[in-house]
Order: sequence, then C-alpha cells, then structure tokens
Amino acid sequence: MFIEAINHRAINQYVYARDKETIDIMLETKKDDMESVELLFADPYDFKEDKWQYKTKQMIKSGSTKRIDYWKISVTPEFRRLRYGFRCTDTQKNEGIVTERGFYDSIPADISHYFCFPYLHEVDIFQAPDWVKDTVWYQIFPERFANGDSLLNPAGTLPWGSTDPTPTNLFGGDFQGVMDNLDYLQNLGITGIYFTPIFKAYSNHKYDTIDYFEIDPQFGDKETFKKLVKECHKRGIKVMLDAVFNHSGYYFQPFQDVLEKQERSPYKDWFHLWEFPVKAGGYPNYDAFGFVASMPKLNTTNPEVKKYLLDVARYWIEEFDIDGWRLDVANEVDHAFWRDFRKVVKSIKPSTYILGEIWHDSMPWLQGDQFDAVMNYPFTNSAVDFFAKQKITAEDFANNLTSILHMYPANVNEVSFNLLDSHDTPRILTLANNNKKLVKLLYLFQLSFIGTPCIYYGDEVGMTGGEDPGCRACMVWDTKQQDRQLFAFVQNLIQLRRTIPAFGNKGTFRFLSVDNLTNTIVYEKATAEEQLIFVLNNSNKNSKTTISQLANRTVEELFTKEKSKFTEDATVNVEPFGYYCFRVTN
Amino acid sequence: MFIEAINHRAINQYVYARDKETIDIMLETKKDDMESVELLFADPYDFKEDKWQYKTKQMIKSGSTKRIDYWKISVTPEFRRLRYGFRCTDTQKNEGIVTERGFYDSIPADISHYFCFPYLHEVDIFQAPDWVKDTVWYQIFPERFANGDSLLNPAGTLPWGSTDPTPTNLFGGDFQGVMDNLDYLQNLGITGIYFTPIFKAYSNHKYDTIDYFEIDPQFGDKETFKKLVKECHKRGIKVMLDAVFNHSGYYFQPFQDVLEKQERSPYKDWFHLWEFPVKAGGYPNYDAFGFVASMPKLNTTNPEVKKYLLDVARYWIEEFDIDGWRLDVANEVDHAFWRDFRKVVKSIKPSTYILGEIWHDSMPWLQGDQFDAVMNYPFTNSAVDFFAKQKITAEDFANNLTSILHMYPANVNEVSFNLLDSHDTPRILTLANNNKKLVKLLYLFQLSFIGTPCIYYGDEVGMTGGEDPGCRACMVWDTKQQDRQLFAFVQNLIQLRRTIPAFGNKGTFRFLSVDNLTNTIVYEKATAEEQLIFVLNNSNKNSKTTISQLANRTVEELFTKEKSKFTEDATVNVEPFGYYCFRVTN
Repeated sequence: MFIEAINHRAINQYVYARDKETIDIMLETKKDDMESVELLFADPYDFKEDKWQYKTKQMIKSGSTKRIDYWKISVTPEFRRLRYGFRCTDTQKNEGIVTERGFYDSIPADISHYFCFPYLHEVDIFQAPDWVKDTVWYQIFPERFANGDSLLNPAGTLPWGSTDPTPTNLFGGDFQGVMDNLDYLQNLGITGIYFTPIFKAYSNHKYDTIDYFEIDPQFGDKETFKKLVKECHKRGIKVMLDAVFNHSGYYFQPFQDVLEKQERSPYKDWFHLWEFPVKAGGYPNYDAFGFVASMPKLNTTNPEVKKYLLDVARYWIEEFDIDGWRLDVANEVDHAFWRDFRKVVKSIKPSTYILGEIWHDSMPWLQGDQFDAVMNYPFTNSAVDFFAKQKITAEDFANNLTSILHMYPANVNEVSFNLLDSHDTPRILTLANNNKKLVKLLYLFQLSFIGTPCIYYGDEVGMTGGEDPGCRACMVWDTKQQDRQLFAFVQNLIQLRRTIPAFGNKGTFRFLSVDNLTNTIVYEKATAEEQLIFVLNNSNKNSKTTISQLANRTVEELFTKEKSKFTEDATVNVEPFGYYCFRVTN
Repeated sequence: MFIEAINHRAINQYVYARDKETIDIMLETKKDDMESVELLFADPYDFKEDKWQYKTKQMIKSGSTKRIDYWKISVTPEFRRLRYGFRCTDTQKNEGIVTERGFYDSIPADISHYFCFPYLHEVDIFQAPDWVKDTVWYQIFPERFANGDSLLNPAGTLPWGSTDPTPTNLFGGDFQGVMDNLDYLQNLGITGIYFTPIFKAYSNHKYDTIDYFEIDPQFGDKETFKKLVKECHKRGIKVMLDAVFNHSGYYFQPFQDVLEKQERSPYKDWFHLWEFPVKAGGYPNYDAFGFVASMPKLNTTNPEVKKYLLDVARYWIEEFDIDGWRLDVANEVDHAFWRDFRKVVKSIKPSTYILGEIWHDSMPWLQGDQFDAVMNYPFTNSAVDFFAKQKITAEDFANNLTSILHMYPANVNEVSFNLLDSHDTPRILTLANNNKKLVKLLYLFQLSFIGTPCIYYGDEVGMTGGEDPGCRACMVWDTKQQDRQLFAFVQNLIQLRRTIPAFGNKGTFRFLSVDNLTNTIVYEKATAEEQLIFVLNNSNKNSKTTISQLANRTVEELFTKEKSKFTEDATVNVEPFGYYCFRVTN
C-alpha cells in the first residue's frame, strides 16, 4: 500500500456540504493501488457502552489519472455532524485505515483519531444562484457585435467589417446593435450575455475605465442600456457586466488628480505609489496591471476606494437590474475586498452571479464567501490542446479533465465558466487550424460537459481571428458569409443541453474509455433516470471502440435520431472526426 | 521519482504571505526520494524577448516524517507578485519539473504552466496580535483557584480543598482570590490568564450560560472584575475570557421562553428546534451540544442571535478591556458568524486575540479571516503519548510534531495555543503516572517549542487529578503541599523562554536526531545569532548520543550553567529522564 500517495484533509474538495443535507467526501490513492475503499462514519456523539457506533459504506471510484484514483461518496448525517475515516483494501488484500492522526493497521477505537466535519451550516455552503447551472453564455465585445445607431459613431469610425481589427480602430458597435439582434441570440438558444466593459474609456476594449458610473457614449446612454437589460430579461436572457476593479484607466479622474497635484492630491492613497513625483508615462513608478502605465492598480484596501467600487457594484444592479458581475484580474485584488463585495451584491439581489477572471487554481476564492465561479481556463487549455491543436493524447486529455473535476467541490464545478476562447485568445476555429470538424467536436464536448458553457460572439458562424486584436473582428452578419451549418449544429447542442437533463449539469460525468491510437474518447453523462454515452473520434482515422456499457442495449443516437440495438459485442465504428451520442432507452 | 507523492497546491500551508514582504513556499515529496529541490520563480510580467526570466533558488529540507520530506523556502518578490514551479532532482539524478499543470521532464517555457501567488496584500496576511507569540498562558477555572471573599460563597460552599471535586460541589473560588494571588502568578512568570467561563450559570463550570452580560455572583461583581483586569494589566498580564456561543444554558431566558410559550415564543428561531412541543428534559428534540439537553444549540445564523452574541463580544472588550476571547466548541458554529465576530472584535480593539477550541484540523478557521489560533490538541496528544504515557517511540513523536509544524503556515504555528492538559482532560502529572521527571520533560519541551504554551492552574506545583471532575480540584496554596522544586523548574523555563530569543518563537525548530532505544530526542532552536541544542532522554536508561552539530563547539548548558568544549566526537551522555540545553557560544 502506497501510503505516501494517500491524500485527504477535511477541507476544500475533499469534504464539503453539497446542499443542506448532503456531505460529499473524496479520497485520493495511488492509481491502481486499491481494490476498494470504504467510508467509516457516524455522528460524533453516537456511542453505545462507550463504543463509537460507526457504520461503513463502499466508496465509488469516480475517476483516475495517470497518478491518482479518486474515490467519492455522499452521506446525509441525521444530525448534520460527522466523524469519519477510510478503510482501504489494496490489490494484495492488505488493509489500511486512514485517519486524521495517520495510518493504522486496524480500526482505532478512540473517536478522536477520525476526521471531523463539525456541523453542516446552510449559510456556509457554496451556493451559486440556481439559474446559473442551466445557463448557456454568449460573450459580446460591444464595439464589435453590431452597429445599430450610427449617430453614436465616434470620430473615425470605420465601415462595419471593412478592415481587420487593430489595437485602436473603431467600428461603432453599440447597445442598439445588440438589441437589434436579440432574435438572433434567442434563436441560437443562449440564455446569458457576458459583456466586456461598457463603462466610459478611450480604448476600443474599455478595460481602461475613466468613469465607472458612466456608459461609454459610443455604446448608448443609460436609458438604452436599461432597455437592453429589460429586452434580454423578456427573452429569458441574463446580463453580466465586466468589473475592472484591479486597476483603473490612466484617465480615471482620481489618477489624473494624482498626476496633477502629486503629494497634495487627496487621491494619493487610492493607488500604490512608490515615490513622488508620479511619472506620467513610460515604465510606471507605481503598481500597475503588469507594468502597463496606463492601468494603475487601485488600492482596494483604502476604505474610500472600497466604498467607491462597492457603490459601483451596487449601482448597476440597483438601477439596471444586471444579473452578474465578471471580475477582471480578480486574483490580484484582496480577499477582504471580495468578501465585502459579495455581501453588498448579494444583499441587493441574492441571485446575482459573481464570476472571477482567474487563470490558475482558484480554490481560495471558491469557498462560499467570495465568488460563485471562475473562468475555467484549465478546461480551455486541455480542450484546445486535445481537439484544436491535436497536441495531447486522448489519455492526457482524460487525465486533465478528471483532475480538473476533482480539484473543486461538485457544486463549484456545476457553475464553472467553461470557455473555448475569448477576447484574450485566438478564436477557436483559428486555434483548430480552420478545421471545422474539430470545432464541432469542441462544441460537442463543451456543451455536454459539467459547468456553464460560453460561446464567444461569432464563433458559432465560423469567424476566425488570431491573438488580440485579431480575435476582435466585427461580427459577420451577412448570412452568406456565415457558416449556417455550424450555427445549426451549435443551436442543436444548446437545445439538447436545455431539454435533456443528463446532457447538462444534472448528469454526472465520467470517462468510460480512451484510445490513444485514434484519440477516441468515450464518456458517460447520467442521471438516475437516463444514461447518455458519447463517442468522439478526434483523429483522421476510422475508430472502432467496444463499449461494454452498450452491450445488448437499445439506444437512440441523438444526432441521427436513429434507433438501434447493440449486440453482446457492442462495437462502435466512428469515422474520422465523427461523433455519436447514444441515449440508452432499454 | 515518485510523482504520486509530490504535493503542492497554491493554498494554505503550501504558499502564504508570512509578512508584508515575504512569501513562504513548501513542497512535499516522498521521504528520501529527492536529493534536492529548487524553486523556479520570478515576477509574472518579467519577460525578455518573450522569454520568462525565472530565477532559481535551492529549497531547504525543513523536516521529514516516515512518509514525507518537507522542502521550504522564503522569497521576497519586488513587485509582490509571484509565478513559480519546482525542479526536483531525485537520488538517481533524474530531474522532474513540478508545475500547476502537472509534471514535466524539462522546464516549460510557457509561463501559464506555473503556480501563481497573484499579489501579496497586507490585509490578507494571517496576523495574530504581536503580543501573543511572547505570551505564556495560565488557565484558571475560577471556582477552584482561590476563595478571596467568603461573603460571596454560594449556599453549600465547602471548605477549600476539604474534599474531592464532584460534578456539582462548590468551593467558592472568586475574582478576589485571583487578585490576592497575582504576585504568585507574576512570580511564576506567566503573562496571560485564560479564564474558563465567568458569566452567570448554575453549574460550577459555568459552560451553561444563563446570562452573557452578567458575571456569576459567586465570582464577584463587575467592579471587581474591572479591577482584576486592571491589576493584571499593571503586571503585564493579559486576560482572556471564554465565549460559549455554540450553545446556551438551559436557563438562558430565551430558551426558557421557548419552553414556556412554545410556537408562540419570539425566541423560537434562536435555536434549532425539531418539533413542538419542545421537551423540557430527557433526550432533546432540538439541536444541542452533543445530545446534552441542558445545552441547546444557538442558531447563530439568526440575525437577532448574531447581534446578541456580537454585542456580548463587544461589551466585555469595551467595558472591561479584556485581551482575548477563547471560543468554546468553535468548529460547530458557522464560518460566516466567526468572520463577523472577527470584524467586530478587531474594530474595537485590534490587539484582541481570538482563540478557537478545535480539536481537529483547523485550516479553514486559520486563513486570516476568522481565528488567530486554535487550541493545539494535536500537539497535546503527541506530547502526552510520548512523554506522559510512554506509548509512542521517539521517531513517532518526531514524525507527529514535524507533521503538525508543516500542517499550517509558520505564522499560524507561532501563536498556536499549546497545552498539556486542561479542565477537559486529566492533569498532566496524573497522565504521567505521577512521574515528575516526565512532567519536567513535558514542560521543557512545551516551553521550548513553537507556539504559545499554557499551564493549567496548579500543575506547576504538582497537583494531580483524573478526568473531569477530578482535574478541577481546589488550587493547593499550602506551600508545604506544593512541589516548590517543580514550581522553580517551570519558573526557570518561563524565564529562559522570555529572555533567550532562540528559546521562544524567534527560534526555528528542527529535530536533529531521535533514538528509539532510549527514546532520546535531539532538537535545535536557532536564530541567525544563536543556536540552542536540546537533548531529552525520555527513558529509564542511560542514553549516549553523538551530535555532529556540537563537534568542536564551545557551549554553555543552560540548566547547570556549565561551560565546556566538545571534541570532534561530540557524544552526550544523558541519565534516565535527563535533559540538557546547550547554547553554542563558539
């Protein structure tokens, strides 16, 4: 038994309240080391004649990577308290007991050895708003989605799509443009829009805020925005805005005041200044986003700054009824700020979604007191590497995804923001070297995976584009230039996700098999009532996979609608870059 | 290379801000697997010609257990941001790179692979009050420390120490008694008193609060308590009270109101009631501490209850200037409550110490937003098992302590509340089967270890007593019945701890060697300026230990004050249950 590789601690993804009755527990052991793992558990005060009355329950292997087997179980303790340990049986039938105090050959009688989940308090449960897990997001970069009101065009606005995007050019996208195309979005099936920044700023991306209380005039006025939110809500579409609170823009009035008045500026503690005089350009002598002088970092521990930004957070919810805040560079802002941010936001509108932009391990922000979700770049990286770039094997992909799913609690995964690309990356079709078959596999995987998928505007009609600014081209509205077949494919996937519970977040996910020769993956999504089995051939070869779970089963294939019955030898042939989703009907 | 046993995640004890400039980083590898580990690190925005400019720095093996080697390092990033990974070299000279995205044979060029410490915010640092790490605590059970005002004796009070303690008898201990003996405590050298509950309650232990705003009349009035705090402060002694917020007493007015008015009681949401009518005794039909009907669990998520308890927390600090709150059954109260508790307490008096009673892994409460420390029962268990009960080997003891020290950040360990016993356990001399030599070793270890030690009243003069109520006997004041030699020994240790920086929390701790044959442990406490080497023989045999660190060194032994010089063969002979502390002087 490899005790060095056994991991459990009564924190984070290892033990958590999934809802007000259920506690999920997970143990990691070395891959293929254990034959079985049992949970030993009971109420900490359940004694008979001085003996702790523990029960046992078999744990399920919920996934494996190259290194690790993950064992999971859910329990519903009557009195909301739990003491527990693990009995591992390895492949040589050796037994080992895992407790908080270490490893034992036999079950310790003294209850103080065991792990402790002290008390399940509803208030401490990680709880994202209910609506989020059923949402399909659509990301809009407002300057580039649609120009609906040419009267708002700023000086130098170019004809729509007349040229490639540059870091500075303008095409006049605006709110009216979005409003004019809500039918299009509703037809696609999305149920949430994430807008990159809309507040007053000079750049075309608006990440260099001048005024957090004003809409950039090129997009429209507050009335128009209010109307846009209302129109979205009418169509069951949520609206999320981008909060750039890590840094302001260079032309943010308080920073301009600092540049002007230097030591005498009442705003000098709004930033992290290193010395005076503060330089007006070049390599900054103050904390900034990276070393970008035009984005001075805000001092979010200064009570005045905090009040200002929390007022911003409050204002756009109270006045415009927005449904979510996406937090730019969220991990470089202090935790204390985000805790208060959550309190303010949830006190106004408890159903508001709080999404952090974090590219790395985000556990510290996902404990229920700060964010509802983060942008799931680990998902993005793996999906892009496997499908788009054909860079990693099916096994590596399955390992990565399994590890991502076991990194956080299940209720965190359900609302994770799963994107394939964004305004910060090349477009997915470009990443896939213009191979639309790969993009289809990517969408199929993304839209059937755990989490809430997000589509970057225009990807659904086959837009291409490299790194920023390439990925920020004008939306293609000419249907002759749109890939309508891809559109229909995405539309169908969204429909399947919204109508078949097992397809979306109600289904549990597990890999059934992977094949490195043809990079074919087989995975299951299942509820108590329904089982879906997906087969994706991510290679230019024909693949042939035997799926024991389909032996003698009657199925409906969701894309062809064909019904069939497998024999004992349930072998599935898939053409290059082909795919199936079998709904088991009998 | 055993990659299954390599552990790091950018959270908790693995990476944290130790102070406003320093980030501590830790990696776990399988015991004896690695020859060396290097940190690869740099600012995330430090690029030259598109290449990330990482530096490297050797990590130090800070400890080992049977399973694991711990590697540590501190870095001070210029811009408070850090991206990092690890280069491991195993004993076969194989190299492996550990990143957030997994294990690689060579150093990944793409910075997005690395672990991220996004930004060091002072406000997020775990910071206990400065004074705590230099404090030596003394725990007083007020009913049993000293009877200074016989006019306050409740009915049935027994003559001081006339009989053994029972669950219900009374001896009339009071505040005047404590005040009368402050000279004694000052002479012992302690600098903080932890009082078990003093609020109005029927029991002798007062854990069944009737009124959180009233002092139990048998202890004195508020004026006397105020005077007591003032007198303590004059002598440099801090005062910590016991907050029993998980549950109230049965006679707490709101609970009595519920019993009387049932569904119609305005207090029915102050508790976790299962049904009506609420039973008045027997097996409770409401949540309680354990299943103890006389201790109904408070609903700390009810805003009224929360306000009431936070007002209590505020009142005793504002009106009486107390220095700390010890939180009873702290882990069964919700995190949200404790976060607000911290805000309230620190807003009134930032130097207030918040100590949670948690017997288990306490990481979730020690992230800077809730507690300053917890009662370190893992320390207690190991020390008692090794010294007092002679139940585990020197190696097991060293493994346990090393693992405890690597379970939390260093700034958490510094203020950990290290106790040998309490009102909830048998007294340490009784646990040690009345062997005072063992108790001396225990005190020597406790008072030279990392953390803040606490002495349970009377232990220092050799009091004995079994499980509650045995451990709650009247303090022995007759000096002829006191073990004055033990008193002097403890007094000397406190003095050493307070005067020699390396002896206390300024010193870093590591085991140098252990010997299972004679259960001898050798450990070092060191600062940049000073090195102390401790040798404790925890057996009834003579031990003989060669300590390479002492070869050719001149030392002063701190207990005998003898100076000597070791030869190349630095062998130390220690008599049964003997000990030395060598201060290296040259």
